[in-house]
Amino acid sequence: MQSFVYHNPTKIIFGLGVLGQTGAEAAAHGKRALLVTGGGSIRRSGVYDTVRASLEAAGIEVVDFGGVEPNPKLSHLRQGIELAKTSGADLVIAAGGGSVMDEAKAIAAGACMDTDINDYLTGGALLSCALPVITVPTVAATGSEMNGVFVITNDETHVKNGMAHDLVRPKTSIMDPATTATIPLEYTILAAVDIVSHATEGTLTQADNDTPLQDGLTDTVVRTVMDCMHVLMATPTDLPARTNMMWASTLAWNGLCPAGIGTWAKPCHMLGHPISAMYDTLHGATLSIVTPAWMEHQAEIEPTRIARWGRSLFGVSEQDDRSAALVTASALRGWYRKLGAPLTFAEAGIEKPDLDGLAERSMSIARSKGEDSGWNTAGIRSVLERSLQGSK
Amino acid sequence: MQSFVYHNPTKIIFGLGVLGQTGAEAAAHGKRALLVTGGGSIRRSGVYDTVRASLEAAGIEVVDFGGVEPNPKLSHLRQGIELAKTSGADLVIAAGGGSVMDEAKAIAAGACMDTDINDYLTGGALLSCALPVITVPTVAATGSEMNGVFVITNDETHVKNGMAHDLVRPKTSIMDPATTATIPLEYTILAAVDIVSHATEGTLTQADNDTPLQDGLTDTVVRTVMDCMHVLMATPTDLPARTNMMWASTLAWNGLCPAGIGTWAKPCHMLGHPISAMYDTLHGATLSIVTPAWMEHQAEIEPTRIARWGRSLFGVSEQDDRSAALVTASALRGWYRKLGAPLTFAEAGIEKPDLDGLAERSMSIARSKGEDSGWNTAGIRSVLERSLQGSK
Repeated sequence: MQSFVYHNPTKIIFGLGVLGQTGAEAAAHGKRALLVTGGGSIRRSGVYDTVRASLEAAGIEVVDFGGVEPNPKLSHLRQGIELAKTSGADLVIAAGGGSVMDEAKAIAAGACMDTDINDYLTGGALLSCALPVITVPTVAATGSEMNGVFVITNDETHVKNGMAHDLVRPKTSIMDPATTATIPLEYTILAAVDIVSHATEGTLTQADNDTPLQDGLTDTVVRTVMDCMHVLMATPTDLPARTNMMWASTLAWNGLCPAGIGTWAKPCHMLGHPISAMYDTLHGATLSIVTPAWMEHQAEIEPTRIARWGRSLFGVSEQDDRSAALVTASALRGWYRKLGAPLTFAEAGIEKPDLDGLAERSMSIARSKGEDSGWNTAGIRSVLERSLQGSK
Repeated sequence: MQSFVYHNPTKIIFGLGVLGQTGAEAAAHGKRALLVTGGGSIRRSGVYDTVRASLEAAGIEVVDFGGVEPNPKLSHLRQGIELAKTSGADLVIAAGGGSVMDEAKAIAAGACMDTDINDYLTGGALLSCALPVITVPTVAATGSEMNGVFVITNDETHVKNGMAHDLVRPKTSIMDPATTATIPLEYTILAAVDIVSHATEGTLTQADNDTPLQDGLTDTVVRTVMDCMHVLMATPTDLPARTNMMWASTLAWNGLCPAGIGTWAKPCHMLGHPISAMYDTLHGATLSIVTPAWMEHQAEIEPTRIARWGRSLFGVSEQDDRSAALVTASALRGWYRKLGAPLTFAEAGIEKPDLDGLAERSMSIARSKGEDSGWNTAGIRSVLERSLQGSK
């Protein structure tokens, strides 16, 4: 095991019927809340009314800011920051999915900055304060409810920037799994792909092979998601499965899985983000396209960790690591296929992807994260080429 | 899965050579630190000098308070509280094992109280503030470094009181596994027994059978401890094993394993604490005496969870749960025997235990924790009787 710092002070309130606690939690952090939401689904589901009533009962003044889109956009974010400033909001509450939580975090950061938020997103400005954030997630996917991560897409340049800062880590997240029970199956499938990717990017790219606690934790998360999806494919509203999957999504990306694994990278997110940015593809779909392709690429370079993962999760029995890693890629593709997640660009609706443009953007992300070791544009392009046909 | 609140804001700084960060962390919380220690081992090991030098370099004034004993005593605790008050300490730093951390937490609480700490320990007074606590654990055992739990023994009445309060949860814990590498094997064995008990009391007593994440996490912790002990029995100074075991000890008792399992109890700690209190037996030894006996008792009442655990950890293959639970008790006894942990009162040096007195004290603890459902003094006595001979 390697050295680490782990510090995750987010308070989690989890269970059926907990939304009514939003007001009391909010009152500990502010008086006037910018309530960030997406489309109309949380109004139709009643979540909006419950949260708003709880806030008002606690004496919180609510300023509405709706309309966050999937792959949240810089132009909309700027409107939210402006509204937070002009309304004098001292608290940001996100009620919705990963995009809503991400944009809410960026608003909380931008509301404390004198310069444009894009100066921070592109690395030119530092963050020294942020409004407190509370989340009420209505999907089990991004894990944004218990981390400081947020991803914003510049809708002018089509660049997607993922940031992480402790200042925007939610103070409290109020998680009612019932809010996720009516999510359409096609989104649930892509959420499952995302959760599994979060739980595994670390374990698949770490160098250390003596991390039994982290291996066991991450494999538990993945196994749980796979078991839950087996149930949800037949019965999408199954509440016990929705419940287990919601907590799994949090544990997958709250920093605990990688604590102690040493240096690791996020190659699949690095490969996937430009696809979302250029084609507005849903995040999970980009991951199911690129992950098996990346595994096949990585199997030729350093197959050890992929082989371990495949043996644990899919019962891969090949003795040599390279073969085991290749079989693992194939097994993962088989799981995606069973779910109906896209395996190729074409299946995700991208007929003629600009592989050169995508590769350049991925390389740029890798460089900005210090994760470019072993990568060049040609190498990235060769992985993306595999994603044209789905398998060799 | 059941509803839960999880909130663990302790910052963990983990790794070789991290002790020098104690000063910087302390400076964020105070200026004058009561440095709580045990016997002389941390002076001999150099840990004391490193921590003290780090504190002084950060401008922290250090007030020494040593001499904490195993099963920390109320009389010594009162001296510590008095010293904290008279010296004007605004911060308590524990450098040592579980007893040192526990007494430091109680000092941090007592230093803010006008009444005697025993009024709080016995339930007559409430805690409304505490000095900030920082820990530098030198054993992997109690998990005290990432929870609000502390256990104090009244050396007049021989009653051991376990308390838990968020106010004394450490702000930061600075964990260098090298500090644990020279712990004598006999203490390491009892520490392993304690960690496994922490990780399993919840999973063995919960009613919910649909908690795959929690099952996987707790089983990972136990499996890791067992694997580490296999190495340490041959090579007690093996640093990778010490490292994995140290993080395992934290995860076993930081609230994450039981988050979502619903109501659970701590029957083995309830049975063990009075043995420590009456005979000053080391905590881990009380657990290896009582745990298999409790399992055999519980197998006749509700064997489901013990059976699950035995199947996962020991590969128990019995189909019916009662048989599987009994075999699990036997397998656990076998593991203890391999370690050399005591299986009977006699092996722990207690020739003629006062079973009636112990049973009354256990019943009193169970009542005070609201964990007395299904218990009476006769039932507790019958479990303790099993611990006379070690197995039926």
